[in-house]
Amino acid sequence: MAEENGKGVDLKAGFLQVYSRLKSELLEDPAFSSTDDSRQWIDRMLDYNVPGGKLNRGMSVVDSYKILTGGQLSSDEFFHACVLGWCVEWLQAYFLVLDDIMDSSHTRRGQLCWYKVPEVGLIAANDGILLRNHIPRILIRHFRDKTYYTQLLDLFNEVEFQTASGQMLDLITTHEGEKDLSKYKMPVYNRIVQYKTAYYSFYLPVACALLMAGENLENYFDVKNILVEMGTYFQVQDDFLDCFGDPEFIGKIGTDIEDFKCSWLVVQALEKATHDQLSILSESYGKSDPAHVMRVKTLYKDLNLQEVFLEYEKSSYEHLISSIEAQPSKKVQEVLKSFLHKIYKRQK
Amino acid sequence: MAEENGKGVDLKAGFLQVYSRLKSELLEDPAFSSTDDSRQWIDRMLDYNVPGGKLNRGMSVVDSYKILTGGQLSSDEFFHACVLGWCVEWLQAYFLVLDDIMDSSHTRRGQLCWYKVPEVGLIAANDGILLRNHIPRILIRHFRDKTYYTQLLDLFNEVEFQTASGQMLDLITTHEGEKDLSKYKMPVYNRIVQYKTAYYSFYLPVACALLMAGENLENYFDVKNILVEMGTYFQVQDDFLDCFGDPEFIGKIGTDIEDFKCSWLVVQALEKATHDQLSILSESYGKSDPAHVMRVKTLYKDLNLQEVFLEYEKSSYEHLISSIEAQPSKKVQEVLKSFLHKIYKRQK
Repeated sequence: MAEENGKGVDLKAGFLQVYSRLKSELLEDPAFSSTDDSRQWIDRMLDYNVPGGKLNRGMSVVDSYKILTGGQLSSDEFFHACVLGWCVEWLQAYFLVLDDIMDSSHTRRGQLCWYKVPEVGLIAANDGILLRNHIPRILIRHFRDKTYYTQLLDLFNEVEFQTASGQMLDLITTHEGEKDLSKYKMPVYNRIVQYKTAYYSFYLPVACALLMAGENLENYFDVKNILVEMGTYFQVQDDFLDCFGDPEFIGKIGTDIEDFKCSWLVVQALEKATHDQLSILSESYGKSDPAHVMRVKTLYKDLNLQEVFLEYEKSSYEHLISSIEAQPSKKVQEVLKSFLHKIYKRQK
Repeated sequence: MAEENGKGVDLKAGFLQVYSRLKSELLEDPAFSSTDDSRQWIDRMLDYNVPGGKLNRGMSVVDSYKILTGGQLSSDEFFHACVLGWCVEWLQAYFLVLDDIMDSSHTRRGQLCWYKVPEVGLIAANDGILLRNHIPRILIRHFRDKTYYTQLLDLFNEVEFQTASGQMLDLITTHEGEKDLSKYKMPVYNRIVQYKTAYYSFYLPVACALLMAGENLENYFDVKNILVEMGTYFQVQDDFLDCFGDPEFIGKIGTDIEDFKCSWLVVQALEKATHDQLSILSESYGKSDPAHVMRVKTLYKDLNLQEVFLEYEKSSYEHLISSIEAQPSKKVQEVLKSFLHKIYKRQK
């Protein structure tokens, strides 16, 4: 255990060093003749938005590649795996900056949302776009000569498209839900989560590692499906923690109830509620008044949703393990299990 | 002349047909399992934001390719040139939707800005992102098997990065300018315009045509510079029309003065103003009160900026013509002149 922690610390330190190098390269990118003011702006914007998360998505590219190649990485391999990991983190930063604007969120990762910083405001929308634009700048600099360069561009493009489509579904559904809560059903929920979260958080890091290992992604259709299922399970946890997690610990104050979110909890509640309980939901869901929020939380507790969640967690885990063990490659099994064990029963 | 108009009408009709096909393909894209609601949303969002402009950027890909290949296009060539033209228009739509949010604009192309449509609001930010994501979806469907597919992806990525960087410079400069108008100087202005407008509006369409014609863009450095210069001239016209053009005719109500924009007019005024005139500018520039706007407009007239503009227009034109005529290829000369003549002395 001590050794494993030791490795984790090493990986994180090495991973963060690569961030500093990528940032310096972007600040001096010859495709844009920067001014001192704009260089300072980008420097601060990157530090504020990119490296402050848990970095699980990014570091999992390195972990997965290490497992797939079955041994120690050369320093060049380590560097390139980290670069792809950071591209995933950059993509995540881009989505978070823009989602926070669209959702009128206040805090993120234990600090003010970027657009809420007084001198930033709506400039944050363009900063989000710049974050997105940094990805192909990083890829062209470090991967242009690789045989899989075009596949990398296609992969990031496809996953970004799916994520933005999921975000659209979420926004439209929430819009409709405000008029008619009965739109919030499990298939709708699953579709939003699949597109909005699972592809970029779970499939993308593994797909990056597979490309680096010389694999053709068309042969990994089942792996994609397993990772999408894992991503769904991850988002259900997220929805659960939004209401029942410790804000200190998860780094943000959950507002899914106030924001009328199509959350796993409300979908479960709508399925299980009696006629009277449904009236409580229609009256109180989506209101920012703390008394209404409390009524919804009490209803969730009355419906035993904490237990329903534990049951869901257990059965998801079992189903995932059996799908993983049906995979022909032991190394791929190991990659998938390593992912699953990082998120199973997480508290943040 | 009649024949030329005839051709123009044909091109536009054919170009618009390709839009309908691309839209249908996007609505059925297998990478995202859409719902009826989201399909309707995208359908309406595309019709509202993509085809309503002058379409000059997009159609110029077709014109340029026709000149470069020196003859009639096969229906397949015509279609592919139109597809790239629409990618340029999609890119433009993406920038406009997001810029309007950041600039708090009201109208665009003679209608409400998309984010101002009541049921849209900030969902428009995600719609902008979707517009951007449609470009690689269109490219992978229609160009994946072309030898220049990767170069096309690189081109769109680089130009988008430059445009977003120019937008950042503009936002930061306007921010600083509000504290200190003396930041608005010609080199600052030129840099913003080069990145924010010239690359995507002028270089991108020609670069698309060159790639389709089998050319290597690395051999067209001078052509890029000429097009960037032309783009600068175009933006100066835009700034002039924002103040002195007919709102009915240009399809929007100019608000550069109210918005504290680093416009060519205010940069010229700051260069030429006496001490007293400078006080008028510091007092009135950037205020939305019509009396202040009027004082700035009167000052522009007192400084003869309309004549200064005509002089600038003439000398730009002459410089561009002589650079164009120094180009070795007659066909490239023709492409560039055709561009220049589309914008010279435009009224909208």
